[in-house]
Amino acid sequence: MLPSPVAIHAAHSLINPYIHHTPLLTSRTLNTIASTPQSPESLAGTPFEGQDPSHPRLRFFFKCENYQRIGAFKARGAFHALLRLVEERGEEWVKRRGVITHSSGNHAQALALAASTLNIPAYIVMPRISTSSKIAGTQSHGAEVIFSGSTSVEREAVVADIQGRTNAILVPPYDDYNIICGQGTTGLELEGQYWETVREEPGLSAHAGNGGGLDAVITPIGGGGLNAGVATFFSDKSTRVFGAEPNFEGADDCRRGLEAREHVPAVSTLTIADGLRTPVGLLNWAIISNPSKVAGVYAVTEEQIKAAMRLVLERMKVVVEPSAVVGLAVCLYNEDFRRRVVTEAGEEGWDIGIVFSGGNTTVEAIGKLYS
Amino acid sequence: MLPSPVAIHAAHSLINPYIHHTPLLTSRTLNTIASTPQSPESLAGTPFEGQDPSHPRLRFFFKCENYQRIGAFKARGAFHALLRLVEERGEEWVKRRGVITHSSGNHAQALALAASTLNIPAYIVMPRISTSSKIAGTQSHGAEVIFSGSTSVEREAVVADIQGRTNAILVPPYDDYNIICGQGTTGLELEGQYWETVREEPGLSAHAGNGGGLDAVITPIGGGGLNAGVATFFSDKSTRVFGAEPNFEGADDCRRGLEAREHVPAVSTLTIADGLRTPVGLLNWAIISNPSKVAGVYAVTEEQIKAAMRLVLERMKVVVEPSAVVGLAVCLYNEDFRRRVVTEAGEEGWDIGIVFSGGNTTVEAIGKLYS
Repeated sequence: MLPSPVAIHAAHSLINPYIHHTPLLTSRTLNTIASTPQSPESLAGTPFEGQDPSHPRLRFFFKCENYQRIGAFKARGAFHALLRLVEERGEEWVKRRGVITHSSGNHAQALALAASTLNIPAYIVMPRISTSSKIAGTQSHGAEVIFSGSTSVEREAVVADIQGRTNAILVPPYDDYNIICGQGTTGLELEGQYWETVREEPGLSAHAGNGGGLDAVITPIGGGGLNAGVATFFSDKSTRVFGAEPNFEGADDCRRGLEAREHVPAVSTLTIADGLRTPVGLLNWAIISNPSKVAGVYAVTEEQIKAAMRLVLERMKVVVEPSAVVGLAVCLYNEDFRRRVVTEAGEEGWDIGIVFSGGNTTVEAIGKLYS
Repeated sequence: MLPSPVAIHAAHSLINPYIHHTPLLTSRTLNTIASTPQSPESLAGTPFEGQDPSHPRLRFFFKCENYQRIGAFKARGAFHALLRLVEERGEEWVKRRGVITHSSGNHAQALALAASTLNIPAYIVMPRISTSSKIAGTQSHGAEVIFSGSTSVEREAVVADIQGRTNAILVPPYDDYNIICGQGTTGLELEGQYWETVREEPGLSAHAGNGGGLDAVITPIGGGGLNAGVATFFSDKSTRVFGAEPNFEGADDCRRGLEAREHVPAVSTLTIADGLRTPVGLLNWAIISNPSKVAGVYAVTEEQIKAAMRLVLERMKVVVEPSAVVGLAVCLYNEDFRRRVVTEAGEEGWDIGIVFSGGNTTVEAIGKLYS
């Protein structure tokens, strides 16, 4: 069964008391940069070398999930999955068994927070080599951290072992109906806030191109839960949904899969966008590969991700992690995408929602990226 | 003549169409950290070594002038100074002469922006060694940048030379009635937003300690315009105003001056809080040294500034420059100040407004601070 827009509305009602209603920000500076052609030199070595850089018009609306609880949208899916479990199986049943996941990233902290909030025991299997700040962050939310080796075989063995002892319920990070519905609430809020913003902000008026609505939304794609959820929410509306990936060492598994018309089941990459190193899940693939739901997936280089992240930090004064800005990088630097905006939007341009998926980084990590 | 609260209200009406109404943010994480005693080890080498660390209760309200136009509160003073000039002397007179200042920092960009917005020619004298991003930033706002040597004698000679040719009007960065009134509007907005926040935000209710009002406000002190303006605004209210300085290489000229009961006219320091390397101006000193206006000035080390900046970037996901967080650093790490909170506030604690003065930094500068 695939999620529906109705299921995402229901998810939002359920999680609303537990999550932050994160802000939707605008930036005249970034709009201006995006609406200026790239330099001819920046197209060197691409299929567009020697051609005139395109001149799209873009107005950005940034949905800041870096200000979400635990610093990433993952809190939405985790709270939704647990609240549904409690609703369907009863509080006692869930509390007796507890929940379990394996993750070294934002999903681990999100599940730990949701579980401790709802008084459910949580077991988080993390690779022994995880950074101490991530381990401490997960423990600080009251979860029991169990260490494993780094390969998925080793991690799954530890999960199976704990499940054997506790009967704990597995809450997967992305390839799951309830997780997708939870992440999709990002799109629901984004749309409502877009209308508020264009009504209230001086100098912004609703855009005529799409019946006055948002023309497009772009989100990062790692496992695909966020993109699949947002695409589901907008599937009965005229807003186009796009996905964005890093292309380093084949991290653009979703884009490549769409090109080959076949799901790519594994990927091995050390892209700086460390939240996007996973392949797209199967349920997410069923949604994202449907062209009536996702209008296209575009990829960017490591340098383009760094350049976009610099603009967000230095100009918007907002801290984001590299994974969060791949959508912005597509809008600023992917000439394929920019030509599409010109073709489909013309002089009118697009109002585009960009999901900043998270902000969990450190000053040392920022320093290392730009040293 | 010293500024009054009424003059600050008038300044706000005048500049309101030109400036951003910057957000007032809260952070449960930082409230918890501030309301936890420091470790005994952190008091080693201080007069409090061996004593029990104090246990103040603090709730923060961050006035985010890093989101102000040009990325710092300086836009307020610059717009106010120019709008008053136009009001008092007439538009033609001001446009014919133009305005001039010497600065390599945020004041230069603020004056350039205000002048170009009001169609007034602006001459900015900058040291030849200024970073290229600062020069480009100032030029991008339409000002004419003239280079000089780095000493104040060399800079003033260039200013005098241009004034001889153009009759341009000098707009000083801080030691000026209209600049102080402009910066003081930060306090006016902060107070209004405090009331909105405690009314609207779940879990926050107005505080009984001070008739339900804000107990205290703390701002950085460099030239003193911001602190003097904010202290003036609150001078007919029961909210205490404090100042914060770095103590590196004697940068705490204001605190030392208060101790010695004598204005310190010069200071030579390379503190990382580069916006606070200047001595307090004379008009600002007349306000700040009045104990009925400013309740105290406290200093912090470079390490304490870095620790506070790390918390703001990593936990709040907000980009600030080092100068912006000296007030927060005082609240978190200055044991003298923390004991004062315990003594004056008791169990009730304080609701304290903290002015984040600016956010003009680069990813490279952040990297260098923590490398």
